[in-house]
Order: sequence, then structure tokens, then C-alpha cells
Amino acid sequence: MDYRARQERLAAEVERRRGDSFLITHRANVRYLCGFTGSAGVLAYAQGKLAFFTDGRYTVQARAEVQGARVVTGRGPAMEAAAGWLLGRRSGRVGIETDHMTIAGRAQLARLLRGRRKARLRSMPAMVERLRMLKDAGELELIRRAVRLGSSLFDTAVAAIRPGATETAVAAELEYEARRAGAEAMSFESIVAGGANSALPHWRASSQVIPNTGFVVLDFGVILSGYCSDMTRTVWVGKADKWARETYQAVLEAQSAGIEAVRPGASAGDIDHAARQVLHRSGLAKYFTHSTGHGVGLEIHEAPRLARGETEVLRPGMVITIEPGVYMPGKGGVRIEDMVAVTETGHEVLTPTPKQFMAV
Amino acid sequence: MDYRARQERLAAEVERRRGDSFLITHRANVRYLCGFTGSAGVLAYAQGKLAFFTDGRYTVQARAEVQGARVVTGRGPAMEAAAGWLLGRRSGRVGIETDHMTIAGRAQLARLLRGRRKARLRSMPAMVERLRMLKDAGELELIRRAVRLGSSLFDTAVAAIRPGATETAVAAELEYEARRAGAEAMSFESIVAGGANSALPHWRASSQVIPNTGFVVLDFGVILSGYCSDMTRTVWVGKADKWARETYQAVLEAQSAGIEAVRPGASAGDIDHAARQVLHRSGLAKYFTHSTGHGVGLEIHEAPRLARGETEVLRPGMVITIEPGVYMPGKGGVRIEDMVAVTETGHEVLTPTPKQFMAV
Repeated sequence: MDYRARQERLAAEVERRRGDSFLITHRANVRYLCGFTGSAGVLAYAQGKLAFFTDGRYTVQARAEVQGARVVTGRGPAMEAAAGWLLGRRSGRVGIETDHMTIAGRAQLARLLRGRRKARLRSMPAMVERLRMLKDAGELELIRRAVRLGSSLFDTAVAAIRPGATETAVAAELEYEARRAGAEAMSFESIVAGGANSALPHWRASSQVIPNTGFVVLDFGVILSGYCSDMTRTVWVGKADKWARETYQAVLEAQSAGIEAVRPGASAGDIDHAARQVLHRSGLAKYFTHSTGHGVGLEIHEAPRLARGETEVLRPGMVITIEPGVYMPGKGGVRIEDMVAVTETGHEVLTPTPKQFMAV
Repeated sequence: MDYRARQERLAAEVERRRGDSFLITHRANVRYLCGFTGSAGVLAYAQGKLAFFTDGRYTVQARAEVQGARVVTGRGPAMEAAAGWLLGRRSGRVGIETDHMTIAGRAQLARLLRGRRKARLRSMPAMVERLRMLKDAGELELIRRAVRLGSSLFDTAVAAIRPGATETAVAAELEYEARRAGAEAMSFESIVAGGANSALPHWRASSQVIPNTGFVVLDFGVILSGYCSDMTRTVWVGKADKWARETYQAVLEAQSAGIEAVRPGASAGDIDHAARQVLHRSGLAKYFTHSTGHGVGLEIHEAPRLARGETEVLRPGMVITIEPGVYMPGKGGVRIEDMVAVTETGHEVLTPTPKQFMAV
């Protein structure tokens, strides 16, 4: 990974905003900028210099992983050492990540900085998140690998689906296979939603059993080398009726329309609109109760957000999900989700798993 | 679960602090107080009334789960609806969870409350966390079940340990068995740390292989009915030498001393001291680089914190871990961890898994 290039982009951003220092506390942002994969570390930028602070538990790991920043492991919490370093560099205005730092965290930092000179805290927008939105070549390669691993699990999950099996049993097979294939973790709690549960977009795998007939929504992803995958497929159990096939077909067409709309220059809201319009035409838009997609990378939900009215403009290097769904309370639901990269000329669907209607 | 009793304790606490309203946004706190298990919901308390706010994705689930509070599902984000309700009730000072709410979240809430009247935000301490520290009978039963399930996985993990197996392969077997036994999830990323990796207290399972000789630290837990388990065992691979046996024995004695010190009236710092003293006597205290334990419940890390100098006094109903360790960089490490309940007369070790030195 080209950490130097990322650090230079960060420095340019801080300078552009006339900041002189910036404290990065959000774990994914810290990892993105210097490579540290542990859970307790703070990266501090001041006047062109970077220093990384952690505690005794992570000394060895930090030395092995952190790139382009001095590593300091103190006796106390990382934040204390970081505040001391900032005071030493006479930073006047310390930028903080307002989307992540808690109110209590801010108060503690303010106390630590009440040192020799007045250091004022300054709310910074999601600056690193915006850098992370555009994936570099190294990231795209890791994302491709995570997506391939995720997709390879689909057959295992389908093989475990049968009437009477619990949703958690299906999740067990899926996650076992993921681990055996080398996944570091699942990127979120796997969703296995059978029958009427498929109408609940944020269901997980429960101890309930898969009924004789109905949809099963499978929504899952893996983490590999820190990068997340995310996909959804919906299969039908039993003999399919007209409603099942038509609902599925409508969602598939909405998803295809969403994908087709992905190109540099289109807005995030345009993509949502393209998918939603298809469901409007088939009278199903009122059952599409969430947004069309989101960015994916070191975190499962990143910028941009693909929802109604979002003005963020798509650019090459963004990696997003396209995942419309239709949910009929008490009856069932369908969601189909791929990961898609925005390219110079349009888009590339990363998820290789087929999408035709499937009855098991 | 006796949600009414919890809600009454909350009301009494808010009143004691002369607050008139309180916005609960932290997921585990929301679940504790009203039973909602989803990820997007806000519980608002004002002048004796409770209302729960969520969005369209959770309408069905909220109606089924939420107890003792009116359920409101709006068109927009839950926070908007909650702010509107508070304005309607003319709440003057709105308590917020400063340990959890981000700076950006606070700014957004302040904007939403800039309604007809001035509503001022007021930082509230970890009030619900303090209620959660003392587990009620229903919680203790669920924790026992989670601990039993977690412990039942140990043999599966040990059976998977052999030189040349990857750490993730061991984690795969462990987590597969957990899922098959009905676990909703692991309570944190399982740690399988072989050989020199066992000297890294916060290692996870990696693609590295277990060497022919050395310690393997297994630290894992499950979530069952929302409650977490947490345990660590360390086994030796190959023929054990004197160093291995002595180091293990020292940690086991430290852990036993920590457990023996657990009783109502002892301070959290006393427990840490009791465990640490044993390692001092064997000259290993400098290799014990973390604290002795933490509370466990709906979250894997809860109050109290068992560390040097912590003054929190143990009370019946607290559930904590006792987990001293010794870590020799480049060589290996040992950690032994049980979950322990504070009882009226002393303590009860919840984790049934044996702790004698084990070579595989």
C-alpha cells in the first residue's frame, strides 16, 4: 500500500483548510493512513510530521506495521502521549474527527491540551473518509479478492438451505466455509432470513426454521486483508408461484437499472432514482423502504451513500453496492446486491455470482 | 426481563440528578431499558414518560420487542422524531449520553432542538451503564447460558490444534461449533495465538501456522440472547519444558488469587492487586502488561474495570472477568480467564472449563 501518497494527500488537505495539526482517532482512518491494524492507536499530524501513539499492548505490532510515522508507545493511554506531542509542537488549532470522537473524548482531550499554551480544538469534516472514497490500485486488488472469497461462499449457503433448517445453521455453514477459505471475519452479522423474515430488511440469522415455501434472503460479506465484501442473493424454497417470479424479476430489473446508471459524473441520487423508478413502474416502490447502496472498503458502510437526493458525484475508484429490495410485511421480500466499481468509462460489476431466479 | 423495574430505576436516577428528560442512544443501553434489539433506535424519557423512535426498517420488529414505551416509527431518522417529541413535551434540559454521542451527533441534535423553546443539552454520566453493572436474576440466567455454550466449545478448539494448522483453521472449527450450538455471534474476534504470537495479548487468528512447540492462547466468547461470554485458556503444543510449566503455573496462581479476592466490598483495584502481587513474587509482573479484568453483559467490555487503583466497589450482581497474563516478547505468553459473579457472600466462578496445564 502506498501510505506515503495517502499521507501527502492528507497533508495537502489539512493545509488547504489552513489547519496546522490533526488528530486521527477513527480506527479505519488510522489504518488507511499508516497501516496499523490494532484497535488502540492515535495518529497525530502536525506541521508536516506524523507520529503514531499506542500503549504497551501494541508495541511489537505497531513497530511491525506502522509506515511513515514515528511510533511512540507510552506507559499511559495513547491519547495522553499524543496530546503531549501536540503541545510540544506548539500546535495552535488541533483538528479532531467530529464524526467519530465522542463528547466525553473531546472533553478529555481538551483537559489534556490545557498545557502551556492554548491549543484550541477544531471540528474537522470527514476528510480522511473522503480520501478513502477513491480506492487506489492496491485497494481495488484487495477488494476484488474479498469479493471473490465472499462470492465463493454462495454455493455452500444454498446447499444448506432446506425446509426445517434453522437460519443459524445456514449461517454456520457459510461462516465456517469463510473461515476455512481464510476470511479474517465476516464483515457484518450474516443475514439469513427465511419466509416472512425475508420481509425484514435488517433481520439476521435466528433460531427460526426455513419454511416449506418462501424466499430466503442471504446477505453476507467477509473481511480479507482488512477489506470488506458485501453481497445479497435471494432464493426461493419450494415450487415458485407467479408472485415469487414477478417480484424477483422486478427487483432484478431495478438492480440492473441501478448498475447501468453507474458512471463517472452521475450523482449518488441518480443511481437511487434509476433503481427506484423501475419499481415505481411495477407498483412496488412503496415496498422499497431503504436506500439503494453505499460505499465499501475498510468499513462495510462508507461514503458515498446512494439515496434519494444525494448529490455526491461518482468518480472512478469509488466502490459501491447496488442493492434494491422489495419487502411485503408478513409475506416475504427480495433483495439483490452486487459490489460495483466506478471506472473511467462507466462501471465494473465485481460480484461474479449469477442472479437469475433460483428455486431450491 | 423486568423492563418496568429498569425503567423505574432510570426514572429515579434522572430525578435524583434533577433532570427532566434523557435521550438514550447507545444501542446496549436502549436494549437494556426497553428490549429493542435492532441497530437504529432512540429511547426518550421525559417527565415520567418513555417513547421509542425508529425508522421504517424496524417498524415490525419494534412493535414486537419494545416494552414499556410508546413506539413511534417516522418517515425520517429516529433522532428527528425524538427531538420533535421532546420539544412537544417542553423539555428544558435534555440529558445526553456523552460517552457515546459523537460531537457531530450533538451538533445535529442541538439543531433539531432549536425549536419553539430553548432546550439545553446536558451531559449525563454513564447512568444506564451503572444500572447495567448490577445484573438482575434474568440476566444472570442468560449469562450462565452464554458461558456454558462458550465453555462447551473448548474441546472442539483443542481438537483442531496441531502443528502446521493455521490459526484461522482453529478459529473456523470453534466458530462453526458455536453457530451450530445456536450462538448469535461471537462476542469478539476470536483470538488463536500460536507460538511467538501468544506473546501478543491482542493478537487475533491469523493465517500463520501453529509451530511444533509453544503456547497457544485461545480467547473467545459467544453471544446468546444478547449476552456475552468471555474465556481464555492456554495450551502447550509439543513436549513441555520447565519454563512452560513454571510460567503457566505462575499465571494460574495469579488468576486464582484474583478470583479469591472477589467479594462484596473489595475494590476493583484490590482484585487487580491480588493477581499482580503473585506475579511480582515470581518476578513476572513486568510481563503482565494489561489490566486484570472487566465487566461483561450485553457488551463484552462493561463496567467495572479491574485495573490498578480502580476504586469501584464490588457488589453482588456484578459479573466480571479475571484474566491475568504473562507475555514474553518473541517467546510466548499465557493468559487464563474465567467469568466470575460477585455474590452476597463472595463469588461464583461461572466458567466450568478446567485450568490445569495441558499439553496437546
